[in-house]
Amino acid sequence: MKTTDGGFPGFLADCQRRIEAALAARLPGEDIHPQSLHRAMRYATLNGGKRIRPVLVYAAGQAVGAAPGALDAPACAVEFIHAYSLVHDDLPAMDDDDLRRGNPTCHKVYGEAEAILAGDALQALAFHTLAHDPDMAADAAARLRMIEQLALAAGSRGMVGGQSIDLAAVGRELSLLELEDMHIHKTGALIRVSVLLGALSRPDCPEPQLQALDRYAKCLGLAFQIQDDVLDVEGDTAVLGKTAGSDQDRNKPTYPALLGLAEAKQRARELIDEAREALDGFGPGAAPLHGLADHLLRRSH
Amino acid sequence: MKTTDGGFPGFLADCQRRIEAALAARLPGEDIHPQSLHRAMRYATLNGGKRIRPVLVYAAGQAVGAAPGALDAPACAVEFIHAYSLVHDDLPAMDDDDLRRGNPTCHKVYGEAEAILAGDALQALAFHTLAHDPDMAADAAARLRMIEQLALAAGSRGMVGGQSIDLAAVGRELSLLELEDMHIHKTGALIRVSVLLGALSRPDCPEPQLQALDRYAKCLGLAFQIQDDVLDVEGDTAVLGKTAGSDQDRNKPTYPALLGLAEAKQRARELIDEAREALDGFGPGAAPLHGLADHLLRRSH
Repeated sequence: MKTTDGGFPGFLADCQRRIEAALAARLPGEDIHPQSLHRAMRYATLNGGKRIRPVLVYAAGQAVGAAPGALDAPACAVEFIHAYSLVHDDLPAMDDDDLRRGNPTCHKVYGEAEAILAGDALQALAFHTLAHDPDMAADAAARLRMIEQLALAAGSRGMVGGQSIDLAAVGRELSLLELEDMHIHKTGALIRVSVLLGALSRPDCPEPQLQALDRYAKCLGLAFQIQDDVLDVEGDTAVLGKTAGSDQDRNKPTYPALLGLAEAKQRARELIDEAREALDGFGPGAAPLHGLADHLLRRSH
Repeated sequence: MKTTDGGFPGFLADCQRRIEAALAARLPGEDIHPQSLHRAMRYATLNGGKRIRPVLVYAAGQAVGAAPGALDAPACAVEFIHAYSLVHDDLPAMDDDDLRRGNPTCHKVYGEAEAILAGDALQALAFHTLAHDPDMAADAAARLRMIEQLALAAGSRGMVGGQSIDLAAVGRELSLLELEDMHIHKTGALIRVSVLLGALSRPDCPEPQLQALDRYAKCLGLAFQIQDDVLDVEGDTAVLGKTAGSDQDRNKPTYPALLGLAEAKQRARELIDEAREALDGFGPGAAPLHGLADHLLRRSH
């Protein structure tokens, strides 16, 4: 998990190997009763996702000097929340998506009812992991703070709230302020808590470090969303694994639609600069966080 | 919260007043952004439910000498889980119910998408409450144990697992063992954890007391489900607030269908006797737990 062997791509590859194994180990096996539910949970999670949120947990943990082994459980917890939200988001009553990362969505394979339940169970598993996992270095008070903050970030004033704001926004003209409010909830909250959970995995992480990392995460989260909108306009279906232009087709509000494509890209760049500035007080351990910020601007999907 | 003024009916009424206020105070207000989601969450929770699970938290807490004020947060947490499960259970892709306690179900009022989200946010709120609530007497280690056990009871090896087993059972002939397995997961797990959370609200509750209360809860949970099946056959729509005989109509497995009505009622009585036996070592503080067991056999809805 050092950046010295292979720089950021090496760090990213290490994290991704690490998180795949950690997720697979913490998900109930397909042979455990009730099997069909556990198969659906594994299908929805072990699907080749980019694991941006776990990577943030590992990168923030490394920036404050937390041990990699202490970071697996928080990394899994945020990814279980993310995975459940995608399963529910893809449902016919929500975005009605048939494809996710080039594969049939969970409800297309397991049916709607089982997909709803798989999402519900993944959310419970996230909190179980933080409360129970024996590999964490955090003491009981730090674990409680992690659970509190993850519940807040995942709930009605975080991610789920953002999805509700998104529902209400379809077909409406949004102002820039309203669009940002939606993204701060919908994707920003979980990105911020990923960074926080990484930092809290070092026992007694100083508050000023937590605050600087939170500023990094806020900027990165918003940049990430702008970039997503940009890619939805620029990308093609094969690379994205979903239908390009699909947000625009459904008349969803986007940054390019509001600001124009060039201005949206400029804004993402400025936010990335601000995110990197927030890392000024950190030593070489913050290299993965810098690398992640750069990577985000360059990604094609 | 004493049974001396008014016996069990007085205790029940006190609990119900107490939990309504505690739930209303912990749910985000309807004026808090995003309003439509918070309205849906309040609608789904503050709907005149029987509050059996919170009553169990209060009754178990009283049996071990926990202060009532320390029990509000755990009581709310189990009810948030129960409320979310009903919202998702009523969805068209699941049981497709239009009525819940005589009122339109959450998705009939707020739409399917908002109902899915309201359920998701209620689950997050349950864990937030246990991690954050300032009124709890439990120390950090006991809180973590509560969160761990609630996550387990709510997840794929508890309540949600039971719903998945139930899905797979519709239209199939089940053995008595399979039927019990379904109920142990679907309703039993949450009833057991309600009793556990009440007991854990007394700092340093002795393990033998926890085990005796768990035996009580296991028997009560199964009796509760048998009684539910019996009422589904015997009740009428006006009293139940849902369509009588609806389980049978959908060819769902039930105890009366497997055992016959008389035998099912006998089995519920035996389980209630066993539940009461488990309380032998407890003093007068266990009167509400006894009262609840009796009440369960006599209820008409």
